[in-house]
Amino acid sequence: MTNIRDIAKMAGVSVTTVSRVLNHHPYVSEAKRAAVLEAIKKSHYHRNINAVHLSKGKTNLIGVAVPFLNHPYFGQLMEGIADEAITQNHQLVLFQTNYEPQRELEALKMLKYKQIDALIICSRAGSWEWIEEYQQYGTIVLCEDARKKPISCTFIHHYQCFQAALDFLHQKGHRKIGISIGRTSGTNSHQRLRAYRDFLKNINEPYRKDYVFDHCLVLEDGVDIIERISKMSEPPSALVITSDEVAAGALLQCQQKGISVPEQLAIIGFNNQPISYLMNLTTIDIPLSEMGRSLFRQACDGTRISQKEMSYTLVERSTV
Amino acid sequence: MTNIRDIAKMAGVSVTTVSRVLNHHPYVSEAKRAAVLEAIKKSHYHRNINAVHLSKGKTNLIGVAVPFLNHPYFGQLMEGIADEAITQNHQLVLFQTNYEPQRELEALKMLKYKQIDALIICSRAGSWEWIEEYQQYGTIVLCEDARKKPISCTFIHHYQCFQAALDFLHQKGHRKIGISIGRTSGTNSHQRLRAYRDFLKNINEPYRKDYVFDHCLVLEDGVDIIERISKMSEPPSALVITSDEVAAGALLQCQQKGISVPEQLAIIGFNNQPISYLMNLTTIDIPLSEMGRSLFRQACDGTRISQKEMSYTLVERSTV
Repeated sequence: MTNIRDIAKMAGVSVTTVSRVLNHHPYVSEAKRAAVLEAIKKSHYHRNINAVHLSKGKTNLIGVAVPFLNHPYFGQLMEGIADEAITQNHQLVLFQTNYEPQRELEALKMLKYKQIDALIICSRAGSWEWIEEYQQYGTIVLCEDARKKPISCTFIHHYQCFQAALDFLHQKGHRKIGISIGRTSGTNSHQRLRAYRDFLKNINEPYRKDYVFDHCLVLEDGVDIIERISKMSEPPSALVITSDEVAAGALLQCQQKGISVPEQLAIIGFNNQPISYLMNLTTIDIPLSEMGRSLFRQACDGTRISQKEMSYTLVERSTV
Repeated sequence: MTNIRDIAKMAGVSVTTVSRVLNHHPYVSEAKRAAVLEAIKKSHYHRNINAVHLSKGKTNLIGVAVPFLNHPYFGQLMEGIADEAITQNHQLVLFQTNYEPQRELEALKMLKYKQIDALIICSRAGSWEWIEEYQQYGTIVLCEDARKKPISCTFIHHYQCFQAALDFLHQKGHRKIGISIGRTSGTNSHQRLRAYRDFLKNINEPYRKDYVFDHCLVLEDGVDIIERISKMSEPPSALVITSDEVAAGALLQCQQKGISVPEQLAIIGFNNQPISYLMNLTTIDIPLSEMGRSLFRQACDGTRISQKEMSYTLVERSTV
């Protein structure tokens, strides 16, 4: 492949001169400009846009660190991010982390080395120390409640949101309520667990470890919840499941096992995804696409910190 | 942000000299090298990796053009691509095309301008002419049967695969068979439609336009198919639906409307995704993750053209 050095050699000028011609810099003699253009023509040289980025200090690339691509929650969030990227004429560099901190660090390093202009972290795997260290090199945007820190973020108030689901079940007469969460180590799950413990305290119910189902992300995890519940001597009468995907798995397994919903077991899902509509699942609507768009806008506007709370809505259908 | 120009100014040397120091080029005097290193130290300059890319002519970025991110088919394909990217220490640049040719062209242009080393097109929106034009600038890999062209691809033999589904239904006694496809304009759909027409010819059944459901991609499209079928005076007795997602929507709607499956309507899905297992859906297993990994390997190995056909398997469950 012909590069800028080859062109310089062919034209008998310096690399700097070639660069000046490419960037329409005024201080180049007509003779040299002509020689460079002739060399370019001969070699079919196509301007390497990385040279332009180097010159401008901008890449128009925004990094996105996301745990999994093959999951409806992140799929919808990514779609919002990608839609806004198209609107703003930027491209996305994707980092699938599988929740491995090392992968997130790779993304942060790309920010440090200016390969990307900003980084959106859809669900953080690494530590706060990393975020604080790498923020000096470029804009980092988080999809979690980070109001205690000077960093841009778009988030749902997960404590309130989870509390709303629990209160709704309580109003319907439930006291024995089980919950599923994505991963106990995440910020969002931490807030949800806090809401759950506070709720139990308020209604004078003990915290039962066997009512908390961790690492629930996909359909099969919902099946598994029902399998475990059906073996309990004192099963919960209601479930708050933080993913419609998982809730749908639970609901299908209830149908298989002849457990009537909501009579024997009430179920609330999260996210209001198409499957919840089809299965008539009561759920909490979270505007994921809009959150994705907001994250992208924050990433592009690196000059100021903004923190955006999004609203949620309880969607009553037939499973509570 | 400090850039290479600022460093040059601070050190009192040319930009070329700074570049030489950064690249460990031998022809730099010790005095100048020391001045540059001192300036870098003072300014906390971090080497712009784009300068390295410019120098090497490689970015370690692979582009991926994908119609939608928020869809299980592409989610699974993307996951395979992303897994292999991690293994091979590359990053992905994402182009969500929404099947708009213009977006695919943007990706092709990034290939031309060396912003990416190669481009994977998961489902082509643009013309063959574009592919042929842009192949000279870098590796393009397609997820479709392109054996007639000199280009790398990973694909399913969709003609044979679709024929297998139709033959299976025919063996079970069905003659009135409807089909759903993603979009009539795509290469894969074209092959499937050809298989359908040939099948009808062989069993002496007429081609009926109202038995062909186009643009079926999501759950709701499956609901829609059943709505349309239930209004027909002569409905099909079986359906081949080229997405488990759509098939699941159809199946749920059959349950809602009291249409018994497979007695009144047999259904075959495609892709063997988790939802098909849960809903006991007969389907065609397609190794999407493995296809994604293969596409990525082909993109990285730009030096030779390889064309890889993947196998499919009929998974018998309870809907036929």
